[in-house]
Amino acid sequence: MKNIKTIAFDADDTLWVNETFFRDAEHTFCELLSDYIDYDNCQKRLFEMEMRNLALYGYGIKPFTLSLIECAQEVSDGKVSNAIIGDIIDLGKDMLNAPVTLLPHIEEVLEELSKEYKLVVATKGDLLDQERKLEKSGLSKYFHHIEVMSDKQPANYLKLIKHLDLDPTSFLMVGNSLKSDVLPVLEVGSYAVHIPFHTTWAHEQVDIEVSHERFKSLEDARSLRSVLS
Amino acid sequence: MKNIKTIAFDADDTLWVNETFFRDAEHTFCELLSDYIDYDNCQKRLFEMEMRNLALYGYGIKPFTLSLIECAQEVSDGKVSNAIIGDIIDLGKDMLNAPVTLLPHIEEVLEELSKEYKLVVATKGDLLDQERKLEKSGLSKYFHHIEVMSDKQPANYLKLIKHLDLDPTSFLMVGNSLKSDVLPVLEVGSYAVHIPFHTTWAHEQVDIEVSHERFKSLEDARSLRSVLS
Repeated sequence: MKNIKTIAFDADDTLWVNETFFRDAEHTFCELLSDYIDYDNCQKRLFEMEMRNLALYGYGIKPFTLSLIECAQEVSDGKVSNAIIGDIIDLGKDMLNAPVTLLPHIEEVLEELSKEYKLVVATKGDLLDQERKLEKSGLSKYFHHIEVMSDKQPANYLKLIKHLDLDPTSFLMVGNSLKSDVLPVLEVGSYAVHIPFHTTWAHEQVDIEVSHERFKSLEDARSLRSVLS
Repeated sequence: MKNIKTIAFDADDTLWVNETFFRDAEHTFCELLSDYIDYDNCQKRLFEMEMRNLALYGYGIKPFTLSLIECAQEVSDGKVSNAIIGDIIDLGKDMLNAPVTLLPHIEEVLEELSKEYKLVVATKGDLLDQERKLEKSGLSKYFHHIEVMSDKQPANYLKLIKHLDLDPTSFLMVGNSLKSDVLPVLEVGSYAVHIPFHTTWAHEQVDIEVSHERFKSLEDARSLRSVLS
């Protein structure tokens, strides 16, 4: 990876903790609904609801909150109490207000890389929410640009690369999702580094081994330096 | 306005009808809640709820839907039925799925201007939703770029202008909101054209007369051509 000029970082679970908040909220939700449905089925029904709403709502906390409310209605057969609907709305607001917890070594790595590379954030989700998290994180000074993408398909990456005025071979994407941060990036001819996070949303899981000359998997962001030289 | 190189268009109520859908949804909502609150107070309480949630939720249909649900709970004192909550969720989904109705003469004007100027969309709201509307509108071929902004403050415009590699004096913003599309744009030293839409959301209303050498108010997009020469 010698000719890289711009490094894009995924945000959620690459720069800071995210999936944990969703799993915690899911846990609270299924406890709230325990009068109507058992825990495992609740998780299953919620995931189905999220998948049903994904194309229309997109990614992020507000779509998640709306799916929680709709799921509560569905699994309770329209019997869920207003108090629980209120708790769900608060759950969503708490997620939006949650503090940002950086992943280990991220800041030192960004500080070092920003001296030599143009760094950008390339993330799915909600624009306002991601801008707010970047602000809270204290990391914005290392980034040239934040690109919030409605999806991470090859076409979205091509658009970003064109927009950054780059050749695909000088672009590296770093992220925790093989499905979103690695496979589409390799497909457009760019480089990708996978840094797994301990928890992955079922929707982002792919059951494959990636082996590619433009790909590396790392334990932790500190090894990025050695991959680039 | 002789040195303009890039023209940015607001999207909602500048390219296509939008506010009308929100007002219709508000109407349906207040009818649904008529057992609990009279129509005028319902509108008032909804607006207050939206303002309370704006900083956290941002702009768009999903924040609106969440505010409708929370408002229904509040005005009914926690007595609103699950059927009504379900109707509200459907109302939001219908808005997301609504067809796009172009404003008069927009397409002919864009087609002509796109031959001589770089055109971009500069809009608030939800990324996925705005991209989808642009796609449905059939107008995307005229635009070089769609910029979805979390807010339309002077700093957001400066960032966009820098990002487009422009001098502020070669940038023109066209939109229906004096507050969002005109005043902050004049403040950063760029040009602005106001094309009013018949309905304006209370949050966007400003009670002023704008008079400025870098500003024009037009009845309809067809006059843009004459302003530019």
